[in-house]
Amino acid sequence: MKEFSLIDTYFRDVSFQRKDVLLGIGDDCAITQIPTGQALATTTDTLVSGVHFLPDADPRAIAQKAIAVNLSDLAAMGAEPAWLSLSLSLPDVDEKWLEAFSEGFKELTEYYSIQLIGGDTVQGPLAITITAQGFVAADQALKRSGAKPGDFVYVTGSLGDAGLGLDILLNQAQVTNSEHSTYLLNRLHYPSPRVFAGTSLRRVASACIDISDGLLADIKHILHASQCGVCLQLDKLPLSPAMLESVERDTAFHYALSSGDDYELLFTVSEEQKSSVERVLASSNVPATCIGQINGAVGKVDLKFNDESYAYSKTGFEHFSHNEVSSQHNNTKRA
Amino acid sequence: MKEFSLIDTYFRDVSFQRKDVLLGIGDDCAITQIPTGQALATTTDTLVSGVHFLPDADPRAIAQKAIAVNLSDLAAMGAEPAWLSLSLSLPDVDEKWLEAFSEGFKELTEYYSIQLIGGDTVQGPLAITITAQGFVAADQALKRSGAKPGDFVYVTGSLGDAGLGLDILLNQAQVTNSEHSTYLLNRLHYPSPRVFAGTSLRRVASACIDISDGLLADIKHILHASQCGVCLQLDKLPLSPAMLESVERDTAFHYALSSGDDYELLFTVSEEQKSSVERVLASSNVPATCIGQINGAVGKVDLKFNDESYAYSKTGFEHFSHNEVSSQHNNTKRA
Repeated sequence: MKEFSLIDTYFRDVSFQRKDVLLGIGDDCAITQIPTGQALATTTDTLVSGVHFLPDADPRAIAQKAIAVNLSDLAAMGAEPAWLSLSLSLPDVDEKWLEAFSEGFKELTEYYSIQLIGGDTVQGPLAITITAQGFVAADQALKRSGAKPGDFVYVTGSLGDAGLGLDILLNQAQVTNSEHSTYLLNRLHYPSPRVFAGTSLRRVASACIDISDGLLADIKHILHASQCGVCLQLDKLPLSPAMLESVERDTAFHYALSSGDDYELLFTVSEEQKSSVERVLASSNVPATCIGQINGAVGKVDLKFNDESYAYSKTGFEHFSHNEVSSQHNNTKRA
Repeated sequence: MKEFSLIDTYFRDVSFQRKDVLLGIGDDCAITQIPTGQALATTTDTLVSGVHFLPDADPRAIAQKAIAVNLSDLAAMGAEPAWLSLSLSLPDVDEKWLEAFSEGFKELTEYYSIQLIGGDTVQGPLAITITAQGFVAADQALKRSGAKPGDFVYVTGSLGDAGLGLDILLNQAQVTNSEHSTYLLNRLHYPSPRVFAGTSLRRVASACIDISDGLLADIKHILHASQCGVCLQLDKLPLSPAMLESVERDTAFHYALSSGDDYELLFTVSEEQKSSVERVLASSNVPATCIGQINGAVGKVDLKFNDESYAYSKTGFEHFSHNEVSSQHNNTKRA
């Protein structure tokens, strides 16, 4: 039996079935059909046990997060998700774990009408690599490089929740309100990729990225790719009631600016498109907040609070950036 | 910086550049363009240190093998390779290792005119996951399911060399002729995916698979998918001079039947197509040997030597099949 057999056993029938999949799991490759006029968007993300999730994390949540982080990348391009490939590295065959993992997989593939088209299972330390493929017309893809001075900066949803959720999980923060605590932990474990927001932003956003490493770290990618700077109004940052009622204001800003795993979209919009973007997002019930404006100070991030300068120096975690890393939770390490 | 930064630093410029890549490394997704009339073929394979290669293996060889095993899957579908995504899990940033790995990557992407379009680098145990994408017309894809009783069974190249090479590496076999030894080790470290043979077999082969887990293990996938049986003539097995001059005949059969990592193509051809297949392969200098014939005994493999029955029971290694695995070299473990 090829290594596909495990994929076959646990995943063949749980996935949503699409008509554009001509050949799915069970051959040397999957064969799929791209709609006429569309380009292919491809992204790959790996989650490693002990780095991106706790070794004893719920396998259902691991599956859904592994899918969500990939769909978030597709969303950030304005692409419509279609197919997933799964590489699963497992220390041993734990049927209970595999069943829960595949159950989580099933739920999300059905929700997004996407199909698992193949993959590989190997023996090794627990790690999940997903490659997600989707469609977008070539001239409508939302790149990081289109922001221009004067453009307005938006984010979807609220920021920092997953970071506070992780600190709750690690006993580094206490949230006594159990409803808030549950909400924050769910934001960490079950991120909601902004797939619909992404496709809605085609033609109207000038640049887009998803926030996976923190607002500050990720906006710098737009600044770098677009050769511009930004002024952010911290008083405009969208913070959830759970965040606002659980921590001090400056701590909330810290989570919003520097903690990872939010998987919200960060995008820029020209003045001419501002009203139409707001109309589109409102009519589709996507919460989005204008938090600042692009300027010409290349690479610079200017933070303001009520129009006053706000001093802040901490950046999101960088993989490998310190040449020393602890064995766990590096994704949220802060300098 | 996103995790892409490592990919950016070491891989952005080393890869072959294709015109159908509209957006490569450095955004949330790659954007690529499929030629009109072609379907997309996708495959994913993971190599784990200590399982698929020795921890101290040459990084250049690791890179090339990781690419080759994926291209071999594309070849087995008759697909033309186009793009790669790379997920690299690294315990730390070892610049020398990364340079050698990216050098190996560069050589093979240039040789096959394929482009690295993106990926992910994460901290974790050394493992490489590659997703390869290519093209094939939907009605020309070589599946496992098309073999029919009476079809002839062919393999490209020679069988068992990589298995004997691994045993040399592990001091479980001795090959005193240094030329043979080098050849056998190269077959293990630098497999040559049969990309050109694969595309040549479109329209003429009735079924196809690549031999990664051993002839016996892999032909069973064709038998299962095509609901048929096979009779193999061991005296016809293509064995290299290095193999023939290094081990006894029965040992050579064992390597050819059961050892993995050959990455030759195994395919079936109807009687009507037999002469045209042989013409096509001869004119393109692809060595291929007829080793048997498909029959109606569903799932059965009948082994003959000079038309006499040949008793043999060992099968290729199955990942996880024994619920106990040693920490190294499982890919060649034999029951």
